[in-house]
Amino acid sequence: MKLEPATDVSDRELIDRTAARIAGLDSDAAQAARRMLDGKAKPRGSLGRLEDLACRLAGIRATARIEPLEPAVVVCAADHGIAAEEVSAYPQEVTEQMLRNFAGGGAAVCVLARQTGARLVVVDLGVRRRVRHPAIVDRRVRDGTANAAHGPAMTVPEMRRAVASGIELAQELVGDGVGIVALGEMGIANTTAASALTAALLRADPDGLCGRGTGLDDAGVARKRAAVWRALEANCVSPRDPLGAVAGVGGLEIAALAGLVLGCAAARTPVVMDGFITAAAALAAVCVDRRCADTLIASHLSPEPAHRLILRALDREPLLDLGMRLGEGSGAALALPLVAAAVAVLSEMASFEEAGVTDAEA
Amino acid sequence: MKLEPATDVSDRELIDRTAARIAGLDSDAAQAARRMLDGKAKPRGSLGRLEDLACRLAGIRATARIEPLEPAVVVCAADHGIAAEEVSAYPQEVTEQMLRNFAGGGAAVCVLARQTGARLVVVDLGVRRRVRHPAIVDRRVRDGTANAAHGPAMTVPEMRRAVASGIELAQELVGDGVGIVALGEMGIANTTAASALTAALLRADPDGLCGRGTGLDDAGVARKRAAVWRALEANCVSPRDPLGAVAGVGGLEIAALAGLVLGCAAARTPVVMDGFITAAAALAAVCVDRRCADTLIASHLSPEPAHRLILRALDREPLLDLGMRLGEGSGAALALPLVAAAVAVLSEMASFEEAGVTDAEA
Repeated sequence: MKLEPATDVSDRELIDRTAARIAGLDSDAAQAARRMLDGKAKPRGSLGRLEDLACRLAGIRATARIEPLEPAVVVCAADHGIAAEEVSAYPQEVTEQMLRNFAGGGAAVCVLARQTGARLVVVDLGVRRRVRHPAIVDRRVRDGTANAAHGPAMTVPEMRRAVASGIELAQELVGDGVGIVALGEMGIANTTAASALTAALLRADPDGLCGRGTGLDDAGVARKRAAVWRALEANCVSPRDPLGAVAGVGGLEIAALAGLVLGCAAARTPVVMDGFITAAAALAAVCVDRRCADTLIASHLSPEPAHRLILRALDREPLLDLGMRLGEGSGAALALPLVAAAVAVLSEMASFEEAGVTDAEA
Repeated sequence: MKLEPATDVSDRELIDRTAARIAGLDSDAAQAARRMLDGKAKPRGSLGRLEDLACRLAGIRATARIEPLEPAVVVCAADHGIAAEEVSAYPQEVTEQMLRNFAGGGAAVCVLARQTGARLVVVDLGVRRRVRHPAIVDRRVRDGTANAAHGPAMTVPEMRRAVASGIELAQELVGDGVGIVALGEMGIANTTAASALTAALLRADPDGLCGRGTGLDDAGVARKRAAVWRALEANCVSPRDPLGAVAGVGGLEIAALAGLVLGCAAARTPVVMDGFITAAAALAAVCVDRRCADTLIASHLSPEPAHRLILRALDREPLLDLGMRLGEGSGAALALPLVAAAVAVLSEMASFEEAGVTDAEA
C-alpha cells in the first residue's frame, strides 16, 4: 500500500492511535503457559528462565498455544551532529560505510541474522550521505541530526516523522508475517545521544552513564561527558515529554526504534532489544506508554554502564552476558535462537501424561 | 565396521591409545583466528566472548579456516544403585520412562536438538530394564550399577567397557561427519554419583558439593550427603586414578561420557558440556589427560554448587546462566546456536578492507 506523503498531523495521530492500542501482557495466557510448562515431563521450573521467557511470550501474544515466531532483525541507521564533539573513536563516514557493509551481507548482524534464519531489514533514517542500494529501506527524514550540544538535534515534526516511520515499519513487518522483531542500530556517536536521552528520561547523572562506546580512551570519555552535559543544558528535556527529549538530544534512528517498539507493542509482537542504544529507544517508548515494557525482551548485557541502569528500570534480565559491545543488533540476533527455543519447549514438549513419566511433584 | 566382542585388554588399550593421541589446543590456529577477527569490520574484541569461543574452536580444530560444525547431542543413560539411599525426588523407573520419552521425541533435549538442527543420539549404558526401541543405541554394560554406598558401583573391566563405548561412539560420530558433540545424560540419582566423583577428583568437601538435584527437600539433601560420605568411605578413590574413581563411585553413563570426551579430544572435535553430571564426567577425562580440557566448552551454569567448582577447576566460563537444572543435555543443546554463531562470525564476516570501512584502531 502506497502511503500519502505524511503530514505532521497524521504522524502525531498515528503515534497517539498506536499508543492507545497497546494492551500489555495477557496474564491469563501467561498463566496458562505456566500451567502447560508445569505439566511437561521435567521437574517444575527446571528449564529456569527459558520457562519465564515462554510465559512472557505467551502473555505478549495473548495465547499459550504459541506458534513459531518468524523473526526479523531491523537495523535503523542515522548520523549524529554531536559527532562533531569528537565523542567517537570512529569518523562519521563509518555510518555510511557500515550501511554498505550491511547491504553487502558481511557485517556481524548479517552473519548472525542469517545464522538464525531471520530476515534483515536495514533502514536509513538519515545517514548524512544517502547510500543507494536496493537492500536499504529509505525512510530518510533529514541528512543526519544537528549537533545537540548547541540546540535540538531535530525538530519535533522531524522526530514524529521518524517515530511514525518506525510504527509503519512494525505494521508492514507484522502484516508480512513477522512474529518477533530484534532491534539493531548504526550511527557514529549514538552512544552519546543515547546517554543524554537516558540521563533525561531516568533523571540520572550523565557522568555515571557515559561509557567507552566502541572504544574511546579516557580523554574521549571526558569529551563525551562534556557533550552530554552541554546537550542537556542546550535542550529543555523531561521524562514527562519523552519524545520531546528524543527530538532534543536523541537521534533519528533512536526515534524510529522507539516507534518500532510502540508499533510492535500495539500488534502484540515481542521485541528483542540489543544493547544500550536500542534499550534507550525502548525506554523512550515505555515513557510514552508503560505497557510497552511488557513487550520487551533483553537479549544481552553490554558493558556500557547505562545499559544496566535501563534494564533495571525496565525490570528485565538479559539472556546473555558475553561482553558484547558492537551494537548493530548483533546481541539481539544472537539471542533469537533462545527465544525460538522457549517457544518450542512450550509447544512441542510432551507432558508427564503423554510421555508416561511419573510426576513426583503431582 | 563390525567390531569383535571387546575384551578388557582391548578396552584398556583403546583408552590408552586414545589418550596418547590427544594433542591439545593448536595455539597457532587460535592466534590466526584472533588476527582474522581483529581484521573484521568492527571494533577489536567487540563481540566479546563470542570471539574467544571462535578462537578456541579454531585451536581445537587446528585451523582458523573453520567450516560449519555438524552438531550431535549424545545422551548417555544408566541407572544407579545408590538410588536405594533415597537420594532423588524421582523413583528409579523414571530413567527408563525418560528413555522412552527421548525415543518418542517429546523430551526437552529432543525439542532443543531439533530446534538447532542437531542429531540426537540416545545411548543406553545400563538402564535397569532394557528399553527396546530403534532410536536407542544399545551399549549396555550391566543392568544399572551396584549401590556405591556399600562398595564399588561397577568392576574396573565394566568401567573400561563403558569408557571404551564412549570412545567408540565418538569415533563413529566423527567418522560420520559430526564436528561438535554436545553431552547429555539421564540417570535417577546421578547427581549423587557425580557429587561423590567430584569430591574424589577435586578432594573437595562432599557436604559443600551436594545440591538439590532435580528437586530434593532438606531431608533429601541430608540423605544425599550421607550417601556420598558412605560411598567415599566404601571405595578407595583418588584423583591419581580417575577412572578407578569412576568405577568406585561414578556411573555407567558417566564413564561413557568421559570416554566421549577422550574420543572427541583425540579427534579434535569440540565437546559442549551440559550441567553438573557431564562436567563431572569431563573432569574425569581431564584427570586422565589434562589436554582434554582444551576441547571443552561450558554451555551453561547449573544451580548445583559442584558445577561451579568443576568449571573453575576446568577454567571455563559458561555461555549461559539461565537457572536451568534439567540435565538431559538441554543446556548443551541450547548453547549450540551460540557456538555456530561464533564459527559463522569467524568464517563469514567481512574484513575492514573487504567492506571498505575505516579502521580507527589500525
